[in-house]
Amino acid sequence: MTDKFKQPSGVRDTLPAECAAKRAIEQKLLSKFGQYGYLQIDTPALEYGGLYSEGDRFDLDRLFKFSDCDGALLVLRPDMTMPISRVVATKFAPGRYKLCYLGSTYRLTRRSNGLREFTQAGVEYMGASGTACDAEAVALAIESLLACGLDDFIIDIGHVGFFGGILKQLGLDEAKRRELAALVERKDVIGESLFAAREGLTSESMSLLAGLPMLFGDGSVLERARDLCLNDEMKKSLDELDALNAALVKAGYGDRISYDLSLVGEMSYYSGLVFKGLCEGAGSSVLSGGRYDRLCDAFGRGVPSVGFAIAVDRLVDVLPANEPTQSVDEVIGCDGTPDGIAAALAYASAATSKGRKVDFVGQCSKGELDEYGVKATMFGSGEKK
Amino acid sequence: MTDKFKQPSGVRDTLPAECAAKRAIEQKLLSKFGQYGYLQIDTPALEYGGLYSEGDRFDLDRLFKFSDCDGALLVLRPDMTMPISRVVATKFAPGRYKLCYLGSTYRLTRRSNGLREFTQAGVEYMGASGTACDAEAVALAIESLLACGLDDFIIDIGHVGFFGGILKQLGLDEAKRRELAALVERKDVIGESLFAAREGLTSESMSLLAGLPMLFGDGSVLERARDLCLNDEMKKSLDELDALNAALVKAGYGDRISYDLSLVGEMSYYSGLVFKGLCEGAGSSVLSGGRYDRLCDAFGRGVPSVGFAIAVDRLVDVLPANEPTQSVDEVIGCDGTPDGIAAALAYASAATSKGRKVDFVGQCSKGELDEYGVKATMFGSGEKK
Repeated sequence: MTDKFKQPSGVRDTLPAECAAKRAIEQKLLSKFGQYGYLQIDTPALEYGGLYSEGDRFDLDRLFKFSDCDGALLVLRPDMTMPISRVVATKFAPGRYKLCYLGSTYRLTRRSNGLREFTQAGVEYMGASGTACDAEAVALAIESLLACGLDDFIIDIGHVGFFGGILKQLGLDEAKRRELAALVERKDVIGESLFAAREGLTSESMSLLAGLPMLFGDGSVLERARDLCLNDEMKKSLDELDALNAALVKAGYGDRISYDLSLVGEMSYYSGLVFKGLCEGAGSSVLSGGRYDRLCDAFGRGVPSVGFAIAVDRLVDVLPANEPTQSVDEVIGCDGTPDGIAAALAYASAATSKGRKVDFVGQCSKGELDEYGVKATMFGSGEKK
Repeated sequence: MTDKFKQPSGVRDTLPAECAAKRAIEQKLLSKFGQYGYLQIDTPALEYGGLYSEGDRFDLDRLFKFSDCDGALLVLRPDMTMPISRVVATKFAPGRYKLCYLGSTYRLTRRSNGLREFTQAGVEYMGASGTACDAEAVALAIESLLACGLDDFIIDIGHVGFFGGILKQLGLDEAKRRELAALVERKDVIGESLFAAREGLTSESMSLLAGLPMLFGDGSVLERARDLCLNDEMKKSLDELDALNAALVKAGYGDRISYDLSLVGEMSYYSGLVFKGLCEGAGSSVLSGGRYDRLCDAFGRGVPSVGFAIAVDRLVDVLPANEPTQSVDEVIGCDGTPDGIAAALAYASAATSKGRKVDFVGQCSKGELDEYGVKATMFGSGEKK
């Protein structure tokens, strides 16, 4: 009974001032995506659990789950990339598709203060590959954040192939790989040392792992990393990043990008480029993306793809609240007679159709209206319509 | 494993052409709401079950339910009026608030073809009462549907007090009242006769019940209904509708309204005016609303309110698809060299910042680009940036 006053943890109301700011940011993002040729699609919040359970891509313990009437497992979508891949692989003819989205996603976070319902806006360029497409994804990430007025940010770029090459050399099984990836992702150097000692890794591997979290900074990181390559997979990933870096620097994005070869991607489906948008004041990244060429394999179709998602709620939190609170141009009231009401409604209809904002308070006194401090008009039974 | 190809029943993807049409309709609605002084708020899709279980206002069997980590019952919101009432009653100081919303709501329908996730856009005018506010709600309902380009529609108006007066006279208990309300709501005349016979109702009551479904049409219905009044409650409801009708007709909305005294409101929380938007081609109403003066009582605060919700998906289905499919102004491609990629990205950045829509295909041939039938530009290593 008493919980009607409360809200579940991890969700929040967005009241008018913040809501207006959020809508403005969302519109800027969607507008920029549209200018780059991305078409918006909506997918439902409810998906079958099977979409997310395959290949251990998502930890089902972190999803909101429930049973359908027929006993099937339903989940609230934790991301938008899986549903959009489902759509492209099962509903669209083979081809290239530039799609974008704006919607709520849901995850059962373990952190007590973590959001469990959050808004994501993002793009997916599906059915195309190559450095040019990767470069557009990073460029659009930068352009999108700039369009929102974010200034103090950087796109941190990595490649899953570099770390993948190390893993290959180590000959670890899947579970151990994931354990190590998690340690690397959070730059846990001590954890890595303990892991290396426990698994009896060679000193060459150990020094490489120990050095990995240091491989971040400008394009010179890519040169330094050359000396550490153990195999062709690692070299190939650096070749790709070199080409990407050359294109992005020449296009004028050099001061917005940096490299971090310990970036291994939050999502296990990434297959090449990975990147994150970092900015002052945000506790975690405001944007994350990468290439996922094998995600659609599960649907029986190879669709090379690249994309990114922006954490809109974090962006709203970080951006200065410079949207003026919506205010009306005029308040109107009436004496409560049918004539007065009718005159007020006819006036509101005409004024709003010209784009004016008019707040019809209802039956009230002129004194009440005047308190709003904007143009105030009363309508009574003596008024002409 | 195989359900990754499928979608749960009652949900659907909205692909680009329909999505663009839906966004356009939503923007027209939100714009009209804003012009009438309504401020948008968001509330989460997840609420505690307690918000909906009180007072039998919602059938919990028809909600999506699941347990939180701590065992608490969570539901996916089946409406927006309860959450917004929660916000106003628990987070806002007493006063008048004009709020609007656009969001997904969720219900477990029993009909096999029914949508279970659907988009609602609506307004709530909270903290004010009187005919003027009721009239504004109906006027804004009309203006909103007109703003979307809907032409062939009518707002059907009723009042829960008229039927409430009959129920009062019959002395039925709560369960029987609800049974009878359901019969009246779907104009089930035979069901009503059987009910009257079973409950041993007087012939006066029976003839009134039998006549109720016939009490629909223009304002003259209100005069005919006068003769049937059994008590002051019924008379008072007609007085309110008379004043409302006079105001709406004088304001020029006469040809958009009709009356139906068998409208008793889908929601048990309505306390006065109820109305529905009906149009050609929609299987059910595209809009429903009413006055709910006692809904916030549960939060310990009396907040007289009126509002309506528009079923956006139904509106999209009935409106002609006259939104042109988004198309780009220009396609661009490159030879895949860093220079070519950089030139293409710099061109896209400059062109999109001027509002042009540019689709950068990636590495491709001029021939491929030309197939798009719009302006096509290639960038290569020889290009100037």
